[in-house]
Amino acid sequence: MHIHIHEFPDSPFLRLTEAEFHSAAAIAGPIGAGHRVTMGESIADYVAASPTMEVLIATPGTVRRLDLTLAPRLRIIQSTAAGVDPLAPFDMIPAGVKLLNNRGVHADRAGEFAIMAMLMLGSHMPAFATDQRAHRWHRRPSGVVAGKRATIVGVGGLGGGAARRARQFAIHVTGIRNGTDPHPDCDETYPIAAIDSVLPTTDFLVLACPLTAGTRNLLDARRLALLPRRAGVINMGRGGLVDQAALVATLHEKAIAGAVLDVFATEPIPADDPIWDAPHLIITPHISSDDPDHYNAATLAMFFANLAALAAGQSPPTLVDLAKGY
Amino acid sequence: MHIHIHEFPDSPFLRLTEAEFHSAAAIAGPIGAGHRVTMGESIADYVAASPTMEVLIATPGTVRRLDLTLAPRLRIIQSTAAGVDPLAPFDMIPAGVKLLNNRGVHADRAGEFAIMAMLMLGSHMPAFATDQRAHRWHRRPSGVVAGKRATIVGVGGLGGGAARRARQFAIHVTGIRNGTDPHPDCDETYPIAAIDSVLPTTDFLVLACPLTAGTRNLLDARRLALLPRRAGVINMGRGGLVDQAALVATLHEKAIAGAVLDVFATEPIPADDPIWDAPHLIITPHISSDDPDHYNAATLAMFFANLAALAAGQSPPTLVDLAKGY
Repeated sequence: MHIHIHEFPDSPFLRLTEAEFHSAAAIAGPIGAGHRVTMGESIADYVAASPTMEVLIATPGTVRRLDLTLAPRLRIIQSTAAGVDPLAPFDMIPAGVKLLNNRGVHADRAGEFAIMAMLMLGSHMPAFATDQRAHRWHRRPSGVVAGKRATIVGVGGLGGGAARRARQFAIHVTGIRNGTDPHPDCDETYPIAAIDSVLPTTDFLVLACPLTAGTRNLLDARRLALLPRRAGVINMGRGGLVDQAALVATLHEKAIAGAVLDVFATEPIPADDPIWDAPHLIITPHISSDDPDHYNAATLAMFFANLAALAAGQSPPTLVDLAKGY
Repeated sequence: MHIHIHEFPDSPFLRLTEAEFHSAAAIAGPIGAGHRVTMGESIADYVAASPTMEVLIATPGTVRRLDLTLAPRLRIIQSTAAGVDPLAPFDMIPAGVKLLNNRGVHADRAGEFAIMAMLMLGSHMPAFATDQRAHRWHRRPSGVVAGKRATIVGVGGLGGGAARRARQFAIHVTGIRNGTDPHPDCDETYPIAAIDSVLPTTDFLVLACPLTAGTRNLLDARRLALLPRRAGVINMGRGGLVDQAALVATLHEKAIAGAVLDVFATEPIPADDPIWDAPHLIITPHISSDDPDHYNAATLAMFFANLAALAAGQSPPTLVDLAKGY
């Protein structure tokens, strides 16, 4: 097959190299052999490759900038991200083209970030960060996190990793998901419609779900007001899951204990955005879930697993359901 | 026995209450019964209790302010802290008086703080805190901590808790201790004289040992220079373990990746101390090891275990060796 790997020079994300592709192809065995690979970083590169391209590997933000109607043989788009929300509502995906993501690749790293953030909230680290900026020594003792309650919204790759680590610290884990299936690393699961009933007893609210029409602004002012004053918020999903202005206002009012946010309404955050100085807030620049040492190899291994499933007439493991958006 | 519990009103630490004493005494059984308990918070209170006092329970900083020669029947001082360095060189402890500390009480909480701090260093959180203060969005990706190398100086209560949690994340743990005994939660242990050989391969340097004449200024400019640029420093022992000015200079030079410090040369840190603004540094106000929900009960349980050992003619479990200083 003709596989085209594309990324524009201004992408903030890790670039896939041709050497990484060939290394992953060799590991994949027969399904990795015999492909023609082209690499692109300009519209001209894309146009040149498009007549014969059957597979496109790129971030969703890059795919959005390409004219897919120029690629009549395109059958597969392998996203190098799990969140494909930049492509919603998916009307630019030609009929018959399968969109695949790389969900699951992020679980280990995301689990570590999540438990770090929960321990940070348990130890009042966002408040100490604010105190440090003010040169203020103010002891706020805290105990172990055992017995505290985490509500994890989305228990796929990210949230599942978070749940696994949380249980190692004897945190009670409530998973919020589409549907009512139990999850091996959650003490209980509830459908998303029930989230309001769980918020008042939540110590750590972890947002780890895809951004879809159904989850946009999930954490709005009304739901923020349902959280107890001791609660902390962690967002490692997408900025659009939160009403960011309402969250910043909630922090200023000290109506919750703090937040650790990795994703934002606008990224990069503009230098003059007031969120930088919000009290009891720790900001990280969208790094919660990407492990640079393993990310590309794991994404390509997932791609070849998808190819193998398709060759065997099965559904590829990370096929995106365009109606659901993940 | 006459047991006197003393704390001055200006103490920054958790106060023991008479109710907590009686609750712990009831749990302790026969060894807890029949004692006369007095509570003091002034020199006058102490002087009034001193003629009959057999046991004094207090922080080391409080003990230092009392004239122990006024208490001729004193046999036991139970420190409500593990670090008794404020009493060194112990020449004010009358002959025949046993000094007991509460080491071991801090292990669970300290272990959580330590793994939080290691995960924070692994995720470049000190650098992100500096970036946030400057309104700067700068992605610094990072992988999981598995395979990184922690050097934990002191593998008693604090360091043992740190080692246990580190191994849950597949961190390679080197313990530095007095002597050469192995430790169940360390991959290897070295005597303190060998520390220089371990520093160049250290990712996370965790200081968790007592402050003694032998450990004062342990991390000086020369040893800081032995750490690789990727290394991070965690101090949850005592401020005096570190040459604080040298560490701040090292951070300004970006010669190490960052630090998470919970203890300092002077506490509280004065508002005009330049350490508040040191780059890639996260400051917490001496809260790493104290769990307010369990601390006093656990300390008193330790006290009664010490009493029981003494009643049975055994060495009390947390007897301080005055020659060693811990």
